[in-house]
Amino acid sequence: MTDTISLPTPDDVLAAAARIAGRAHLTPVLRARTLDDAAGCMLHFKAEHLQRAGAFKFRGAANAVWSLDTDAAAHGMVTHSSGNHGAALALASASRGLVCHVVVPNGAVAAKLAAIAGYGAVLHHCAPTLAAREAACERLRVQTGATLIHPYAHHDVIAGQGTAALELLHAAGPLDVLVVPVGGGGLASGTALALQHASPATHLVLAEPRGADDTLRSLQAGARVDDLVPDTVCDGLRGLLGAPNFEILRAHRSSDGTPVEVIAVDDADTVAAMRRIAVHTKQLVEPSSAIALAAVLANRSRFAGLRVGLVLSGGNVDPDRLPWLS
Amino acid sequence: MTDTISLPTPDDVLAAAARIAGRAHLTPVLRARTLDDAAGCMLHFKAEHLQRAGAFKFRGAANAVWSLDTDAAAHGMVTHSSGNHGAALALASASRGLVCHVVVPNGAVAAKLAAIAGYGAVLHHCAPTLAAREAACERLRVQTGATLIHPYAHHDVIAGQGTAALELLHAAGPLDVLVVPVGGGGLASGTALALQHASPATHLVLAEPRGADDTLRSLQAGARVDDLVPDTVCDGLRGLLGAPNFEILRAHRSSDGTPVEVIAVDDADTVAAMRRIAVHTKQLVEPSSAIALAAVLANRSRFAGLRVGLVLSGGNVDPDRLPWLS
Repeated sequence: MTDTISLPTPDDVLAAAARIAGRAHLTPVLRARTLDDAAGCMLHFKAEHLQRAGAFKFRGAANAVWSLDTDAAAHGMVTHSSGNHGAALALASASRGLVCHVVVPNGAVAAKLAAIAGYGAVLHHCAPTLAAREAACERLRVQTGATLIHPYAHHDVIAGQGTAALELLHAAGPLDVLVVPVGGGGLASGTALALQHASPATHLVLAEPRGADDTLRSLQAGARVDDLVPDTVCDGLRGLLGAPNFEILRAHRSSDGTPVEVIAVDDADTVAAMRRIAVHTKQLVEPSSAIALAAVLANRSRFAGLRVGLVLSGGNVDPDRLPWLS
Repeated sequence: MTDTISLPTPDDVLAAAARIAGRAHLTPVLRARTLDDAAGCMLHFKAEHLQRAGAFKFRGAANAVWSLDTDAAAHGMVTHSSGNHGAALALASASRGLVCHVVVPNGAVAAKLAAIAGYGAVLHHCAPTLAAREAACERLRVQTGATLIHPYAHHDVIAGQGTAALELLHAAGPLDVLVVPVGGGGLASGTALALQHASPATHLVLAEPRGADDTLRSLQAGARVDDLVPDTVCDGLRGLLGAPNFEILRAHRSSDGTPVEVIAVDDADTVAAMRRIAVHTKQLVEPSSAIALAAVLANRSRFAGLRVGLVLSGGNVDPDRLPWLS
């Protein structure tokens, strides 16, 4: 499935922006002077934790759901997700009156599963491996005729995720660097396409958990590393880089020829950044969001004096289990 | 001190709005469908936890600091505060290049004291009683010639706090009810003045901790109750209602003749509301803010179907000591 899709282009990101306008929120861009002082640069946070269903994932899901023709849509949607994509697809499906099946791994965050069910999706539990999740999805697809919307290795999902960067650039003005988290690579590859259209000079930096650094290794090796067992507090970033996502990221260059840069981040730094964001912006974000700030704070000289954009990717954290308290 | 000030008027609130424009943030108004569904009404949250120094208190402090003539200002400011007013006055003073002395009670929230010091104020510790705080303030005033800016029983502070309601009404449109927390009554009395000018038909509801319900008792008795020992998780609402604040609230009527209504709220309901706000809006607010939502949720029939405004008064909560975890 992930090896045969056509790669989206920057034009597909623009089409996605038109398609989801009025369906997804146009989220604000937040500033915080105390964090600017701590980082030594100008931080512009795109607040996707305030997106519908609490994460940027709604952009790709809405683009995929509303791209389908009527006949295909009538059979509903199916996907697997550690949380945010499932919630996003459930809500996007409900917004078009469609059935949505979501395969969820045992051990997923309780607050996220409650959100998925709350949006009206049918939950199907499975073992927490990629193979088990894909097998369960395939069974449901054959049984129901539903359309499979992969969480990240999907043409319309990638294009939809790129719209967050378009909005951030429009609101913040020129950026020297854009830092986004990378897990499966939907946001990362969509952002690369958005930059190619809207801001070719901006450098793209990916923040990846050191315990799930397959993107770093894949881009270094020139071939996709797919045998890593993720170990990180960032539950949204445990997915391995998808094939189309890898292709887009490997090919991407900014206008001065700079390739995509990946920064591996320690979980302890991510948790500290999450707490800093809570104190200084009053925003409750996921570890998978805070990792972008952690990447900047751990590499101050790399970012000194620059205009930096960061995507706060989601806010679906269990308030009873905040990681800085454990 | 609190018995001799002239009472501010609605015109003073308008003058304050002009004075602090560009100095205080014009904070957003937040909506959340899931909370509307839970409450059975339309909730409009004025996000004063995103105000400078993290609370609405900056409005009154900035109005007071920038109202002073040059000679008086040169001797600096002095106040006592359990936290947010101290931070606000420190930042407002710094914005005009003035010295600020802040008397803080032993036992105040550590994060708040760090903020006050961070804004450049001089801290003076004292016993956690109103008498000790006022005595320490008076000593500093005599020693330094600084101007005393009381946290709530102050003409310019009351007028400044009323500007939050002006902005909320402008952004949200007509409101049936406006719910604000009440401690010393700066926000409550300023809001009453704002409504008299901008929306006389809107009913004013005050949310007060059941363990610090002196405002409820004072308005019922027609005389200020000043012998209550507060016992509440809402550290920003432990101050007793000030004399000018009482006078304004006692006299206030909406255009249909309705007096101010006070709802006493259990701390457990406030803590639950604080957690709900975190889950559904990703905003980290103080218990003193969440009490407004708690008042609505505990009285659904009172608010059913109405357009309700609520002021989220502050966000300076210690993330290591979130009350829903204790």
